[in-house]
Amino acid sequence: MREALVAAAFDLFLSSGFEATTIDDIVTRAGVGRRSFFRYFPSKEDVVFPDHDRCLAEMIAFLDAESDDEPVARVCGAARLVLRMYTDNPTFSVQRYRLTKSVPGLRNHELSVVWRYERAMANYLRGRFANRGDGSLRADVIAAAVVAAHNNALRSWLRSGGEGDASADVNHALEFVRGTWGAEGEGSEDEDTVVVITKRSTPLWRVVREIQTATGQDH
Amino acid sequence: MREALVAAAFDLFLSSGFEATTIDDIVTRAGVGRRSFFRYFPSKEDVVFPDHDRCLAEMIAFLDAESDDEPVARVCGAARLVLRMYTDNPTFSVQRYRLTKSVPGLRNHELSVVWRYERAMANYLRGRFANRGDGSLRADVIAAAVVAAHNNALRSWLRSGGEGDASADVNHALEFVRGTWGAEGEGSEDEDTVVVITKRSTPLWRVVREIQTATGQDH
Repeated sequence: MREALVAAAFDLFLSSGFEATTIDDIVTRAGVGRRSFFRYFPSKEDVVFPDHDRCLAEMIAFLDAESDDEPVARVCGAARLVLRMYTDNPTFSVQRYRLTKSVPGLRNHELSVVWRYERAMANYLRGRFANRGDGSLRADVIAAAVVAAHNNALRSWLRSGGEGDASADVNHALEFVRGTWGAEGEGSEDEDTVVVITKRSTPLWRVVREIQTATGQDH
Repeated sequence: MREALVAAAFDLFLSSGFEATTIDDIVTRAGVGRRSFFRYFPSKEDVVFPDHDRCLAEMIAFLDAESDDEPVARVCGAARLVLRMYTDNPTFSVQRYRLTKSVPGLRNHELSVVWRYERAMANYLRGRFANRGDGSLRADVIAAAVVAAHNNALRSWLRSGGEGDASADVNHALEFVRGTWGAEGEGSEDEDTVVVITKRSTPLWRVVREIQTATGQDH
């Protein structure tokens, strides 16, 4: 019944437009009662994103599970769960992307969906970075960066009509973030190894200052 | 008249709640007609964020202006314009923060406001990074990181009831992002990256010698 409602809704959204379609239109087409609609979806917007609640629950379970993963790598793994939801059904994902882009109300609804994923990741990272002074800042920035990287690659794929290898592109994008912050690991503040990445042309004094800070030799 | 509408609206939101207050209530209290409300605000949500449109326009002008700033530093400067809007009126900002937190519809509206700032920053960075292969990815990730850092510090300040030095905290948070990506500047993709891995306890002179060798600055 849930699937029938989603299918009926999308048929109507694509033929008559999102705004012009009423919930009554949807239930009539699906051949069910109005109350059935609200048993599955709080609003007309929610029927456009029918799998996000399930995916968010899956992400939270993934992040709650025991794991030896380095924290940033783990959050990148969580982002891949969202990607899979899109790539499992490319036609639907591309249709929805076009619909969402053209209806401001849906775009705002999508922002709130994305925000919930970002919060789940930030909460997880906050826990893993609990022993760092800048843990909350670092958690928020990294969660935002992971979501932005994921969405950058996902949107390219959706714009292209679902052509090409979305996974490879998203992995590349996530690697950009993991490469920036992932190597440090949690609680490694007192560990021995220091990694300094710099350009060949960076003035030496600048590199030295960075190393002094990184190794705690700056006081 | 605009200010009177905002003041009347906030009196009512704080005493009767956001949901229970109608636009009719607001215009009655402000002593103006209904059409006057809609001349200034498209919706009841917009009256809660009366200065964001102006601030966004200011940000876009700031980013469009000629400048020698390194791109990430420039975007951090743009974020500071948003902060100033909050700190210019701490009492109002704290009241609004509490209201927004308790009303899901307002929180979603705020997400769309934040999204517009982030888009403005990402568009600017995309222009500055146009000659890089990963320019669009880098632009999106850095814009998201700047917004997340800014909001992390801003929210702490709002949660504290507007106590303490918001500017110092936001500067510290932005510095975390600028320090991560800002030094590189645009167009530096073809430069060689040098990775130095060392023990925390290695004497500094030794690390410096290693870097001199690695970067070819040893002759």
